Amino acid sequence: MVRTRLYRNGVLEKKGFPIADVSDYVCQPDCTVWFDLCAPSQEDLDSIAEELGLHALAVEDVLNDHQRPKVDMYDSHLFITVYGVHFDEGSLDPVELSIFVTRNALVTVRENDHFEIDKVVERWDASTEMAKYGVTYLLHGLLDYVVDGHFDLVQDLDSQVEELEDALFDDNLRSRELQRRSFDLRKNMVQFRRITLPMREVVNTLMRREPNKIDRAMMPYYQDVYDHVLRVAEWTDSLRDLVGNLRETHLAQQGFRLNEIMKQITSWAAIIAVPTAITGFYGQNVPYPGSGQPWGFWMSTAVLVALSLWLYTVFKKKGWL
Amino acid sequence: MVRTRLYRNGVLEKKGFPIADVSDYVCQPDCTVWFDLCAPSQEDLDSIAEELGLHALAVEDVLNDHQRPKVDMYDSHLFITVYGVHFDEGSLDPVELSIFVTRNALVTVRENDHFEIDKVVERWDASTEMAKYGVTYLLHGLLDYVVDGHFDLVQDLDSQVEELEDALFDDNLRSRELQRRSFDLRKNMVQFRRITLPMREVVNTLMRREPNKIDRAMMPYYQDVYDHVLRVAEWTDSLRDLVGNLRETHLAQQGFRLNEIMKQITSWAAIIAVPTAITGFYGQNVPYPGSGQPWGFWMSTAVLVALSLWLYTVFKKKGWL
Amino acid sequence: MVRTRLYRNGVLEKKGFPIADVSDYVCQPDCTVWFDLCAPSQEDLDSIAEELGLHALAVEDVLNDHQRPKVDMYDSHLFITVYGVHFDEGSLDPVELSIFVTRNALVTVRENDHFEIDKVVERWDASTEMAKYGVTYLLHGLLDYVVDGHFDLVQDLDSQVEELEDALFDDNLRSRELQRRSFDLRKNMVQFRRITLPMREVVNTLMRREPNKIDRAMMPYYQDVYDHVLRVAEWTDSLRDLVGNLRETHLAQQGFRLNEIMKQITSWAAIIAVPTAITGFYGQNVPYPGSGQPWGFWMSTAVLVALSLWLYTVFKKKGWL
Amino acid sequence: MVRTRLYRNGVLEKKGFPIADVSDYVCQPDCTVWFDLCAPSQEDLDSIAEELGLHALAVEDVLNDHQRPKVDMYDSHLFITVYGVHFDEGSLDPVELSIFVTRNALVTVRENDHFEIDKVVERWDASTEMAKYGVTYLLHGLLDYVVDGHFDLVQDLDSQVEELEDALFDDNLRSRELQRRSFDLRKNMVQFRRITLPMREVVNTLMRREPNKIDRAMMPYYQDVYDHVLRVAEWTDSLRDLVGNLRETHLAQQGFRLNEIMKQITSWAAIIAVPTAITGFYGQNVPYPGSGQPWGFWMSTAVLVALSLWLYTVFKKKGWL
Amino acid sequence: MVRTRLYRNGVLEKKGFPIADVSDYVCQPDCTVWFDLCAPSQEDLDSIAEELGLHALAVEDVLNDHQRPKVDMYDSHLFITVYGVHFDEGSLDPVELSIFVTRNALVTVRENDHFEIDKVVERWDASTEMAKYGVTYLLHGLLDYVVDGHFDLVQDLDSQVEELEDALFDDNLRSRELQRRSFDLRKNMVQFRRITLPMREVVNTLMRREPNKIDRAMMPYYQDVYDHVLRVAEWTDSLRDLVGNLRETHLAQQGFRLNEIMKQITSWAAIIAVPTAITGFYGQNVPYPGSGQPWGFWMSTAVLVALSLWLYTVFKKKGWL
Repeated sequence: MVRTRLYRNGVLEKKGFPIADVSDYVCQPDCTVWFDLCAPSQEDLDSIAEELGLHALAVEDVLNDHQRPKVDMYDSHLFITVYGVHFDEGSLDPVELSIFVTRNALVTVRENDHFEIDKVVERWDASTEMAKYGVTYLLHGLLDYVVDGHFDLVQDLDSQVEELEDALFDDNLRSRELQRRSFDLRKNMVQFRRITLPMREVVNTLMRREPNKIDRAMMPYYQDVYDHVLRVAEWTDSLRDLVGNLRETHLAQQGFRLNEIMKQITSWAAIIAVPTAITGFYGQNVPYPGSGQPWGFWMSTAVLVALSLWLYTVFKKKGWL
Repeated sequence: MVRTRLYRNGVLEKKGFPIADVSDYVCQPDCTVWFDLCAPSQEDLDSIAEELGLHALAVEDVLNDHQRPKVDMYDSHLFITVYGVHFDEGSLDPVELSIFVTRNALVTVRENDHFEIDKVVERWDASTEMAKYGVTYLLHGLLDYVVDGHFDLVQDLDSQVEELEDALFDDNLRSRELQRRSFDLRKNMVQFRRITLPMREVVNTLMRREPNKIDRAMMPYYQDVYDHVLRVAEWTDSLRDLVGNLRETHLAQQGFRLNEIMKQITSWAAIIAVPTAITGFYGQNVPYPGSGQPWGFWMSTAVLVALSLWLYTVFKKKGWL
Repeated sequence: MVRTRLYRNGVLEKKGFPIADVSDYVCQPDCTVWFDLCAPSQEDLDSIAEELGLHALAVEDVLNDHQRPKVDMYDSHLFITVYGVHFDEGSLDPVELSIFVTRNALVTVRENDHFEIDKVVERWDASTEMAKYGVTYLLHGLLDYVVDGHFDLVQDLDSQVEELEDALFDDNLRSRELQRRSFDLRKNMVQFRRITLPMREVVNTLMRREPNKIDRAMMPYYQDVYDHVLRVAEWTDSLRDLVGNLRETHLAQQGFRLNEIMKQITSWAAIIAVPTAITGFYGQNVPYPGSGQPWGFWMSTAVLVALSLWLYTVFKKKGWL
Repeated sequence: MVRTRLYRNGVLEKKGFPIADVSDYVCQPDCTVWFDLCAPSQEDLDSIAEELGLHALAVEDVLNDHQRPKVDMYDSHLFITVYGVHFDEGSLDPVELSIFVTRNALVTVRENDHFEIDKVVERWDASTEMAKYGVTYLLHGLLDYVVDGHFDLVQDLDSQVEELEDALFDDNLRSRELQRRSFDLRKNMVQFRRITLPMREVVNTLMRREPNKIDRAMMPYYQDVYDHVLRVAEWTDSLRDLVGNLRETHLAQQGFRLNEIMKQITSWAAIIAVPTAITGFYGQNVPYPGSGQPWGFWMSTAVLVALSLWLYTVFKKKGWL
Repeated sequence: MVRTRLYRNGVLEKKGFPIADVSDYVCQPDCTVWFDLCAPSQEDLDSIAEELGLHALAVEDVLNDHQRPKVDMYDSHLFITVYGVHFDEGSLDPVELSIFVTRNALVTVRENDHFEIDKVVERWDASTEMAKYGVTYLLHGLLDYVVDGHFDLVQDLDSQVEELEDALFDDNLRSRELQRRSFDLRKNMVQFRRITLPMREVVNTLMRREPNKIDRAMMPYYQDVYDHVLRVAEWTDSLRDLVGNLRETHLAQQGFRLNEIMKQITSWAAIIAVPTAITGFYGQNVPYPGSGQPWGFWMSTAVLVALSLWLYTVFKKKGWL
């Protein structure tokens, strides 16, 4: 499926036309064009770059891994890198999205199809009244979708933290499991910070120095996206604190449990050791009082039972058992 | 009960009139109007928005959860989000309060009725001499109430920290309970920081860029609110430190107690094990000195008692018992 | 005792006159007046406020607790809050001092008499040559005294830290005591930071924006106070580090001691358990070699003693005993 | 092998000529000269310094160890210090590279031959179209190579962290090994930060204040290098967090394992201690029920086996075994 | 020995003349005078202060302890405080050096003779070609010496950290010793930070606002000192990280060793307890199979030896022994 769109004077005129046609529209000032590439080859990119006059460095960055979210300003266009978030078997898998913004064209280049570009299209269609602002409008819808994705993720992380918190004071807690999950959670949070923190700078840069000057009426919408970015960042910081709280409490609990176990060991060891000592006494081959006599047996048994019970109640009262 | 108020030239003229009348007063420059909505529906908000010319984004934010405290500047009005604090069974439950500020109207929108707006009204009535400053005066009273709420909370948290501190060196301390409470406390503090730290920026923004310019005479009052915000922030930071102190000391105590328990175990184990070893000796089926002789019994008993007492005193002196 | 002073053209003219006379002098430009209030009532303050034209908010702050050190600028006067330090049974007890500074009057309001204002007076009398700078001179003497108090405190905390450091490697160390003291110390340091850190801003604000412009000749003296404030702040930060060092080392020591204790337990347990096992062997009711024979006894005893001694030397060599 | 190059008007004219010839070309404005020194002696440097008019302090810095990455601006030239990274038996070994930049000459001075300057030359040859920008072009290729080296290292550290993470939840984990490796890893990261963090300032300084003004067309290339530097810095910070996560989880695991071991000890100790207590009972020299009777033996054995099995199942069910 | 020097037009004219002569030279614009005081009395200082017109506050600071490194600007002179470093039995002993800088005189006041001023003189004599810059030249030599002292110290601390790192994975490690040394090291580092971190501000202030304007030719030399200061600061920060790494690893090791010890205890306890249980069985006074029979003895011994060996091999295989 070819993902292309042509807006003329704020009205959607065409969609799904071949990318080859783009060059026809780009030179018409009343047109705004969008098209999307998914995991393109070097050649695909080169032909696009030539057509739209994109800088070689920007094109190179599309294919290199490990970019950070950023805005690069070139003479005739902007190059933006952001990350969508995607979960793969419990571990965070960021999807790189490269964006070229020229005067009247927006090109999105997805690393793979884990980034659902169709949802961005739905978002555009939900606010067609702003389509007259051209590329600025398209870019806003795109960023809004990306940041909302981050927001959903941070909410998801939050509920994971809450689950762990509930597990913490649950007596059936399985330490190993809790450690594993809090480890994974923290790891995901570190990864997530790497893609979300630089977003502040990205959106801020776009608001302050966009060459296709953002229209005054669009400004609150970008401000709104920026606000969401801040919220995500603050929330992420809180989550760090909460996970820290979780871990420290868990550590303290382990210490506490070790103490409990040691007390139990002592108690039972004493309760078993004392009778052993007494029967040892009555097993001596010396004529102790009652040796070989029935009353010796009763005496031995009485002392043994009495001491064991006494120890049991003592430990019970101290709360060691 | 309808919560509306109309001030004309600094004098309270009417209250409790239907919200529908608001539009009549808003267009009169000598009027200042306030009204309050609690958990309004989308339709309620839309009608208000149309009447006062509020921006769609601001109205949308009212209904979305998880806003951060902030000030949004629109052409004709301000949109402010702050949080009141409310305790629900020991866990902090922030209540979102959305505020629209136009040239001569203040609209408060409460997420639910846990935010007691009547107390704000009392505060307004306590300083009617400033009513002549219109919306600025209403907004000040409102923010002052909100920030005082934060201040009360931080004082409450402080006394909770002190209680835990007292418990820490109490010998009857129940570790589990202390861990639970310090965990909850820290969690509440993290939540609280999220709603209180951005308040600095909120009040600062209002002081520096308010479109309905704050009157010079009102300025110290806003400065006063700002000061309280700073105090809350500093105090919250101190509390973090204090809770950190608490936890680290608690951890050290657990280590200390484990050592104490281990010493006790060793001591008692030795005191019991030694007699066992001796009676074992006298239980051998070999003709040891005194075997089958009464003096063998006395010897055995003497050695056993003497060694046990000696061990007991040794451990007592070392402070292990 | 009434604490009032009147300077005329830099010369102390009167002292101890009734506060009621102040209003006579305040209106004379060549006079500088000081008076002090200790724990005044609302009425006392109101009458003063009226006489000197003090702002209602400032007066209100005097009576509210939990102020932070700050400078408030009003049209006709400054309002300064600082804290003196006082130790009450080992825990820090800050004493609030409110200061009103008008063009030619300085009013000090002490929360209680733990702040020794007479020492400030002594300081003024020690540098009468600067009395010609009027209020600026009085204020300097006052701040200098306050900051020196902070400085003494931080030195005191420093020597407490050193005492704890000495105790740390002392073998007679009582862990419980050390924990208690390091806990208290850290708590005091947190409290102290709250009153000393904002002092930087206080003194800096006074130097940069004082309305009664500081005379060029007085400037180095204020700079000197500022310098002391910085020193206190830096020293406090070092102390935090030192206490952290102390605590972490203490924790490591506890772990180390636990290991030592465990080794001792193992060693002694083995030394006692082995003879028990051997006498058990010789206590069997089966015809083992030497059963019922004198040489059996000697054999048993020899093995038992030999093994015990061997174990003892082994553990001794491993350093476990 | 002599490493020298001469570009004239952006075209590589000569290479491998003796350093002595450099002075002939330096005075020709259309020439750009590069030459490389590896571990030069004081005399080598002095003669170069005289020829190119280098500042004595810069020359001195070349021979001193422990420089930090920096740019020094002298009247007629720049002096830059950066570090290449090289691994020597698992521990990071930074290689100092000193760079002199005059109007039309670039001198590279390597501390030793662990810095592979030939790879820089390859990079230059891969982008000859920019050779017309002279020294700026040479410097860019050099910095690009250095920063890419840092980038490779951080990727390498990342995969080491991942390996340790995989080892963490592996049951065959050898704690000692894991501690050693996480210790080494963290140590390398600390060292690496020292050479990589100041690179931000180095590149930024070059971009903003280069005396041979960077040509507008070269600017995006320097921006690209700067971007890589930021990426390395952010990634390094993430790695710190990940290693922290690793270590804290490892500590919690140790606590967990200690608890597990303690439970096992208790369980087995009880399972062995109980039969011992029972046979002790039946070993008494008193006429207990069944003493000397075959049914006494069956009774003893039955009780012993029953209790042992019961304990085993109890502990199994509690999960202690 | 009197330490005085007189330079006239950049040439050393006299040295070792009495301090009383200084006043003759100070008033000659082509002269630059230096003299040194070691632990002077109040009177010494007062007479100097009068002669050179030094501010009373600066003179007071010389005699007060606990200054922080700083530059104070007075109308006619600068007052600088820096610290030399000196080791006294393993603990850092900073030596205060007060410096007065007038238009053509430099006065150094040493707290005690642990600061070797003669080395500063040697440094001056090593760069006489800059003597024509007068006081600026003297001050540079002095600061250069002080900062190099800091640099030597940080190198020394670095090698101490490395020694501890080597000790960490050494099996003969004595925990107590390691704790003591890492404690001392960290303590010294905290102290050192207090005297070295403010040096950035000191040198920076001198470069930016020196009243005797630094000559353009001297500037790189001050920049060089500043660079060294930054290097010391960055290195100190790395050392903090390394010591943190050291400590955390040491803590993890202790946990690991505790686990090892616990496993050993379990193993040996079981190996001894099982034979005891078996001989207990054969010691019962009931007619068990083989009681009183030689084959009973062989059976008992066989079971006992077999079980013990079996346990030993099991534990060996699990790696617990």
